[in-house]
Amino acid sequence: MTSVCACSWVWPYLCVCTRRGLRAASAGQGRKPGLVEWVAQVGSQYIRATMTVSSLVQLRLVWCCWTLPRWQMNVHKRPLAVWTSATAQWTLKQKKPAELYRIPVSRPPILSGTSLLGKGALSTTSISPKEVMLTSERYGVQRLPFSHVSDSDLTFFEHLIPGRVITDPDELRPFNVDWLQSVRGCSKMLLRPRTAAEVSEILRYCNKRKLAVNPQGGNTGLVGGSVPVFDEIIISTALMNQVISFNSVSGILVCQAGCILENLNQYLEELDFIMPLDLGAKGSCHIGGNVATNAGGLRLLRYGSLRGTVLGLEVVLADGSILNCLASLRKDNTGYDLKQLFIGSEGTLGVITAVSILCPRKPKSVNLVFLGCQSFSQVLGTFTTCKGMLGEILSAYEFMDDKCMKLVENHLKLSKPVTGSPFYILIETSGSNSAHDEEKLNNFLEHVMASGLVTDGTVATEDKKIKMLWSLRERITEALTHDGCVYKYDLSLPVERLYDLVIDTRARLGKTAKNVVGYGHLGDGNLHLNITAESYSHSLLNAIEPFVYEWTAQYNGSISAEHGLGFKKKHYIQYSKPQEAVLLMQQVKAMLDSKGILNPYKTLPASY
Amino acid sequence: MTSVCACSWVWPYLCVCTRRGLRAASAGQGRKPGLVEWVAQVGSQYIRATMTVSSLVQLRLVWCCWTLPRWQMNVHKRPLAVWTSATAQWTLKQKKPAELYRIPVSRPPILSGTSLLGKGALSTTSISPKEVMLTSERYGVQRLPFSHVSDSDLTFFEHLIPGRVITDPDELRPFNVDWLQSVRGCSKMLLRPRTAAEVSEILRYCNKRKLAVNPQGGNTGLVGGSVPVFDEIIISTALMNQVISFNSVSGILVCQAGCILENLNQYLEELDFIMPLDLGAKGSCHIGGNVATNAGGLRLLRYGSLRGTVLGLEVVLADGSILNCLASLRKDNTGYDLKQLFIGSEGTLGVITAVSILCPRKPKSVNLVFLGCQSFSQVLGTFTTCKGMLGEILSAYEFMDDKCMKLVENHLKLSKPVTGSPFYILIETSGSNSAHDEEKLNNFLEHVMASGLVTDGTVATEDKKIKMLWSLRERITEALTHDGCVYKYDLSLPVERLYDLVIDTRARLGKTAKNVVGYGHLGDGNLHLNITAESYSHSLLNAIEPFVYEWTAQYNGSISAEHGLGFKKKHYIQYSKPQEAVLLMQQVKAMLDSKGILNPYKTLPASY
Repeated sequence: MTSVCACSWVWPYLCVCTRRGLRAASAGQGRKPGLVEWVAQVGSQYIRATMTVSSLVQLRLVWCCWTLPRWQMNVHKRPLAVWTSATAQWTLKQKKPAELYRIPVSRPPILSGTSLLGKGALSTTSISPKEVMLTSERYGVQRLPFSHVSDSDLTFFEHLIPGRVITDPDELRPFNVDWLQSVRGCSKMLLRPRTAAEVSEILRYCNKRKLAVNPQGGNTGLVGGSVPVFDEIIISTALMNQVISFNSVSGILVCQAGCILENLNQYLEELDFIMPLDLGAKGSCHIGGNVATNAGGLRLLRYGSLRGTVLGLEVVLADGSILNCLASLRKDNTGYDLKQLFIGSEGTLGVITAVSILCPRKPKSVNLVFLGCQSFSQVLGTFTTCKGMLGEILSAYEFMDDKCMKLVENHLKLSKPVTGSPFYILIETSGSNSAHDEEKLNNFLEHVMASGLVTDGTVATEDKKIKMLWSLRERITEALTHDGCVYKYDLSLPVERLYDLVIDTRARLGKTAKNVVGYGHLGDGNLHLNITAESYSHSLLNAIEPFVYEWTAQYNGSISAEHGLGFKKKHYIQYSKPQEAVLLMQQVKAMLDSKGILNPYKTLPASY
Repeated sequence: MTSVCACSWVWPYLCVCTRRGLRAASAGQGRKPGLVEWVAQVGSQYIRATMTVSSLVQLRLVWCCWTLPRWQMNVHKRPLAVWTSATAQWTLKQKKPAELYRIPVSRPPILSGTSLLGKGALSTTSISPKEVMLTSERYGVQRLPFSHVSDSDLTFFEHLIPGRVITDPDELRPFNVDWLQSVRGCSKMLLRPRTAAEVSEILRYCNKRKLAVNPQGGNTGLVGGSVPVFDEIIISTALMNQVISFNSVSGILVCQAGCILENLNQYLEELDFIMPLDLGAKGSCHIGGNVATNAGGLRLLRYGSLRGTVLGLEVVLADGSILNCLASLRKDNTGYDLKQLFIGSEGTLGVITAVSILCPRKPKSVNLVFLGCQSFSQVLGTFTTCKGMLGEILSAYEFMDDKCMKLVENHLKLSKPVTGSPFYILIETSGSNSAHDEEKLNNFLEHVMASGLVTDGTVATEDKKIKMLWSLRERITEALTHDGCVYKYDLSLPVERLYDLVIDTRARLGKTAKNVVGYGHLGDGNLHLNITAESYSHSLLNAIEPFVYEWTAQYNGSISAEHGLGFKKKHYIQYSKPQEAVLLMQQVKAMLDSKGILNPYKTLPASY
């Protein structure tokens, strides 16, 4: 049982290695910075190759061999491809290309532990969606009394959006399964509207017929929010992928919801701007999905959350009415800010069809430092100093404990430039003048070294060294997967308490856990708590949960910092929200979607 | 007929000159930077003295004499004070101190024109609230069927919050009138709770009894949202003025809603932080009111809106239930973000009792440049260049047309350092390293001068020169009031269209207007359009409205950039919001306040 993952600062892709997959790598992703990861099946074993995308010639090959569980043996009867190091080539073993699953592995494709999968429903390694247990079976969910899709419904939709109604089970398969391959619905129909007007017609009809729908963007969600639970009609935003306008004076971009985040960023970079958010899943995720899940990501420390940068939305409500709040204004105080209801509502209140978003200028200078600290209080002290001395150019502040770094060293053979500290920090600056930024950084470093906050460190200004340093942070998740079964938690906590949870969990679990490690976006108060063990254990899980949730609640933290609640975490909401808030949320849901057709079974518990 | 005002970058105060007023000046406001303005009545004339607060000895005295309308003659039968320049002293002429009205004049205390006052309801100069016409009479509003406050109600509240129930008409007077002195309610009771629990008890009782309430912070609103329309019970946040916590690592402040903005900023400055918002009314306004009105202000360009910086709220709902969403987390995706409903809802959905807000570090270096441009397209081009070259240190970008500057020169005798341009720009930078900031500014200036975007300019790094340059921008409103009757509009528009409205309005009005001027926060897309005439004219007003609103709507602008809708602008909402949005807002209101007791007659039209 193995987890395969990398951390969120790169955008490598996990693919079943096929001819199409290789083509994609050389034609597309290969030009992106970061890593590309390929998995090929050879008999009952998998071969995994990790390669630096910026230089496909220089391949770093990692062989991961393990025996698959019996129930997975029929996924691919023949090896798909084998890597030959002598010729530095993949040899395809299968003439008919298998389906290509282009999945970002910046988030783990297979999670061990049940924080995302529910107690007793542990997933094992699976590449094909065929094996994913139906959500309804795994979780014992009862279907709500929605109508079933009929032939006349099909006729209606084919007339409305001819050629864009998918009912073929094979074509539907990847849209029914989340990319974690942990939940699966059984939708029989996927619709691909191109305009808000088409979405409006679809929803008006569905609402009248009481047909449940599942809005879907890039399907990169982590909490089972983006796929159907039963036979909900999937409304894909994929064809709503047009940039509507960009104002290079104000920096305001207006685009349809199905635009892929990375494409938008590329579009903007040519105009000397960037998107205000950046995610590991940028190559697949849609901006509409980002907004619907209130995605956080890597630039939040610098540019703030989507609550501030999203200036307007166009949303289709459950009854088909189009709510046009697509303003391109930084200031507008005419009535309640309705768009905020839809940001982070995970498609349960409306279908976002277009987004207006404020974009910052592309930074001209980026620097990175890697530091060692002797205590977590020094990590905090360094953060405070850094905010004062770097202020306007600070763009990331990440911390990792020594155990993380040891896993990276042991499993990935990456060596860190600084040793002998229980804590390490990565600080990134982005600014408009490289000389100024470097000088600020140097002043800051002199100060923290002289004051004893930091015991050792290194600075990177060159692109190559920056990437090398980032990989120490980015590949922690990948290293963890080599350490055994991983129990993963993504929490928001007051910064001064952030690491106490790691210490308390370590003390609580003792030798029953192999490793208890903590790292994350300290600048955002976002902790990644990971616990590894040789194998899955119910008793270990029971020792972790609800302890971690209760601990988080005790300090008014959030049990879902940025992933949302979706299908899997909706029952844990009470750990972070009071009863009055949940009741009010349910009232809002009932008001906007009285028949409950929009993404049912998600975000909120049915009753409280 | 004269308006007295200054612009929003200082916080002078307009007071009826009394012994208490003078005491306040020397004891309190005198230590603030900026200006203090005093008005004293001498017979049928007023004396106005403007003095530099940073140096009370150096007084710049401006005498403004005008004949009061007949109906105002009885305000003060004797002169209150007279300024003697020889002794540089005020001589008090009245033994019994009159009431002191401490009002920020960063916003005009008396507005001519009807953008805020409604058609045909033009206000004239008035200092005492006694003359303010009842809102119900002026606007012909019908009282809704709420209960009237009874003796048993009084008994209940006196038992609940003993000593904090005000029913004396004289004491109630300033709370019944907005500081523009344009609307007046007739509330018979003001309550001063200290805790959310007390507010909860109050609202639970009022909801049960169907007693309407008017939540009130510093009463500095511009649209009649902060005072009762009829006899609503005023719930003042003034005694909920405690800082609950401040985390110097995360920069998150948690405080009660009644904390005065300036006090919070002073508290934070001692800890090397600042509030993320700054307003002309900072000396009076409450943070709860700021959040309830989604105040914009001066730091929005740099630190974003309250939608992003407010991390949590504690709100008491109409039924008395306390909604505790007072999280101190930058990331929290557990359910819908309910707090956003209350930001900008102007007290119509709940009473905000506490706020959690993210505060930036105090900048170490501030610079200012004053530039001249030959066209508005050059103003825009300079803004684009400036965003690229100053990027992270840019903190303000204001523009003024030549007509504004001429008014400042003619009426206030201030001379600008750059002449001969149809447009002028003020750019402020705030950063952590003065040498770097100055170098960036110089590079930027060299570039814009060489490229011809800017024809002339000056840089200020010294505090005195910075203040002098700011006063050219800050005192435009004051200069306008000397130009006659002023019709004022505060609009959000796409930046590239911002000045077109000024040009079109000028062309439309021709010689019927004395001056049509435009200036504002270009960085936020916020235009201040001002039209002056010798005297009020219905025909001129009809030429301006609804032209300006329709023009704004044509470009998807906002007819209220940051002031909200309150009582006065609620009927104009359709110029900036579609019908579907207004209907949904009304549904939200009905859901949260089914009896409509919270700040009735405000924000939304009763029917659409």
